[in-house]
Amino acid sequence: MSLADESPHVLESREGGILTLTLNRGSRFNPLSRAMIDALDAALVAAAADSRVRVIVLAGAGRGFSAGHDLKEMRAHAGDAAWQHELFGRCNSMMQRIPGLPVPVIARVHGIATAAGCQLVSMCDLAVAAETATFALPGVNIGVFCSTPAVGVARNVARKHVMEMLLTGDAITAAEAASRGLVNRAVPADQLDATVQHYAVRIAARSRKVIGLGKQTFYAQSGRSLESAYELAGAAMACNLGYEDAIEGMDAFLGKRAPEWHDR
Amino acid sequence: MSLADESPHVLESREGGILTLTLNRGSRFNPLSRAMIDALDAALVAAAADSRVRVIVLAGAGRGFSAGHDLKEMRAHAGDAAWQHELFGRCNSMMQRIPGLPVPVIARVHGIATAAGCQLVSMCDLAVAAETATFALPGVNIGVFCSTPAVGVARNVARKHVMEMLLTGDAITAAEAASRGLVNRAVPADQLDATVQHYAVRIAARSRKVIGLGKQTFYAQSGRSLESAYELAGAAMACNLGYEDAIEGMDAFLGKRAPEWHDR
Amino acid sequence: MSLADESPHVLESREGGILTLTLNRGSRFNPLSRAMIDALDAALVAAAADSRVRVIVLAGAGRGFSAGHDLKEMRAHAGDAAWQHELFGRCNSMMQRIPGLPVPVIARVHGIATAAGCQLVSMCDLAVAAETATFALPGVNIGVFCSTPAVGVARNVARKHVMEMLLTGDAITAAEAASRGLVNRAVPADQLDATVQHYAVRIAARSRKVIGLGKQTFYAQSGRSLESAYELAGAAMACNLGYEDAIEGMDAFLGKRAPEWHDR
Repeated sequence: MSLADESPHVLESREGGILTLTLNRGSRFNPLSRAMIDALDAALVAAAADSRVRVIVLAGAGRGFSAGHDLKEMRAHAGDAAWQHELFGRCNSMMQRIPGLPVPVIARVHGIATAAGCQLVSMCDLAVAAETATFALPGVNIGVFCSTPAVGVARNVARKHVMEMLLTGDAITAAEAASRGLVNRAVPADQLDATVQHYAVRIAARSRKVIGLGKQTFYAQSGRSLESAYELAGAAMACNLGYEDAIEGMDAFLGKRAPEWHDR
Repeated sequence: MSLADESPHVLESREGGILTLTLNRGSRFNPLSRAMIDALDAALVAAAADSRVRVIVLAGAGRGFSAGHDLKEMRAHAGDAAWQHELFGRCNSMMQRIPGLPVPVIARVHGIATAAGCQLVSMCDLAVAAETATFALPGVNIGVFCSTPAVGVARNVARKHVMEMLLTGDAITAAEAASRGLVNRAVPADQLDATVQHYAVRIAARSRKVIGLGKQTFYAQSGRSLESAYELAGAAMACNLGYEDAIEGMDAFLGKRAPEWHDR
Repeated sequence: MSLADESPHVLESREGGILTLTLNRGSRFNPLSRAMIDALDAALVAAAADSRVRVIVLAGAGRGFSAGHDLKEMRAHAGDAAWQHELFGRCNSMMQRIPGLPVPVIARVHGIATAAGCQLVSMCDLAVAAETATFALPGVNIGVFCSTPAVGVARNVARKHVMEMLLTGDAITAAEAASRGLVNRAVPADQLDATVQHYAVRIAARSRKVIGLGKQTFYAQSGRSLESAYELAGAAMACNLGYEDAIEGMDAFLGKRAPEWHDR
């Protein structure tokens, strides 16, 4: 008889246009095993194709958000370079799926977010942390430098602060994470859900199509030269003005009434 | 009889080498209409060609700095894709004019700076805000995502904080804008002019030619690889050392006297 | 008889794997003369080739860290464009040597760090400042804009804050430097050495080979597109997992014991 945990790696729950995805290996701090990476990626792909979904909340079961890659699994494949390349290839794809989604993703961080778990937070559009959460890139402690997590974190946080996390492996507090740009807010634990909900409800109330174009444009322009970024964004603005929801939004504003989005 | 406001879109005033350009549709929160964009761009081009101008202060008449694009005008051209492309093309050019100018531009922000008005602040070299000022990217509220404003703001502010402004549309305070890098300082409203003046007077007292080369080099190196950035900046330093004002500056420093710039 | 200071430009001292390099022209605030640049670069190159070195502390003798280029020397070569190009070429190489080294470099900043001295701090992986230290890019005051220092500082600090340093020439405090990302911490002067030591000892206790790969990957991915950065970092992770020290680190962690690095 197998003692393997047969429950889904990722739980899904919906409330209106808000889809909550919960990493479901809480007893092990939700490691990003191959199975977990595949399950989360599949859930993100499915959400992108579902027009009812308007915003995603990414959470973790148990006491932590995610402790990163599954060390036992990684150790078991220590001599298997093909497996390792596939692991990081799949993990890289899943991480890049998040900015590529047409809907915003909000990380709900109630406990530790370390290594690839910290990377997961960094890749989300928004993140809210409980004051009890901590963030670390501790790979150096076990001889596996957090090089892929650093890609995401370095696109949120100033260079020397990332290097400090990488070289010391020390955790930073949620308040430090907020002041450095890794998360949007650090709130008392009993206000975490209300704060996440505050963002999610507001995003879900807007035009999905407008937010989809805006999010796509935002990440596409970043890293481009100023001139190229403005060309791209200017074309997106002109495109956006052709949307029914832009006409409705402008008419509602000029008419001092609430908009009724077509895209609902 | 036309009721149109025939006063200039942009007011100009000079005091020594300090040119103040004031957006002059204060009763409507200085919208960046096609006419306003063209007038501001023309004023910037003229200032660049005027060797007496050593620094520009950009201000707004009335209660706000600028509320961004002119919604009424934009709505009136809702079906006119050619007009829209021209609008964003011209606005993009005007915005990029600011870092391209040979003299620094200081935003003086006394009230709201929203959407393209917030973008205008982001594109200036320096910005001083009154504590009463607020900053927002609220396009999502009216179905027109602030994609072009985001290009400028994202080059000042960390990624998740920009996304929060874009996805919520909520305003941030001047103090938040200062701590996030969108403005240099938030000061009590009654100290706004003195603070702007403090920066402007000091810049106007330096060598225009040296600052022109330095500003051009700064924006040219940003976004380049480290190696390419250093090549460019090293060449600029060697060029700078050939300026009469560099010789004068070094001689004055070594001789413990005040420099007398040739470029005045 | 020459009155020239014949002592070494850079002092070296070792304690375990920690190499301290001290700029040794303290009476003149350690100017980055041609001789100093060459001496520092040679010391960095030698350190990189010495497998006993695991971390470098970069310090300054006397009352300041470094006041930047040697103005007297620069003035003496004012008409010599070839000399100037060589100066900045060599300085650029030395500055880029720091992120290119296989071991981390920690700046120990006890006093002023201005112009190229501030640049030197910006290029280090970590930096700790005494509260008495100050940081400035004051070239504008002497007609020589701090264009090369800006390359380094702009990769640590938000754009408008860099422009303020460049255009005003004003010094910022160590606390401001810490909050803006130019240094990791500002500490009371009597805790400076203990704080630097805290970082250095921890880094020296880890696997040199793992840190070398991680540091190289970190700088190589920065400035790349997200996709390209992840490809590079994913390949580095897979490579890292093949190191003996990764196996040892994972085994030690899973076995709840301290690792014994092969690379010592």
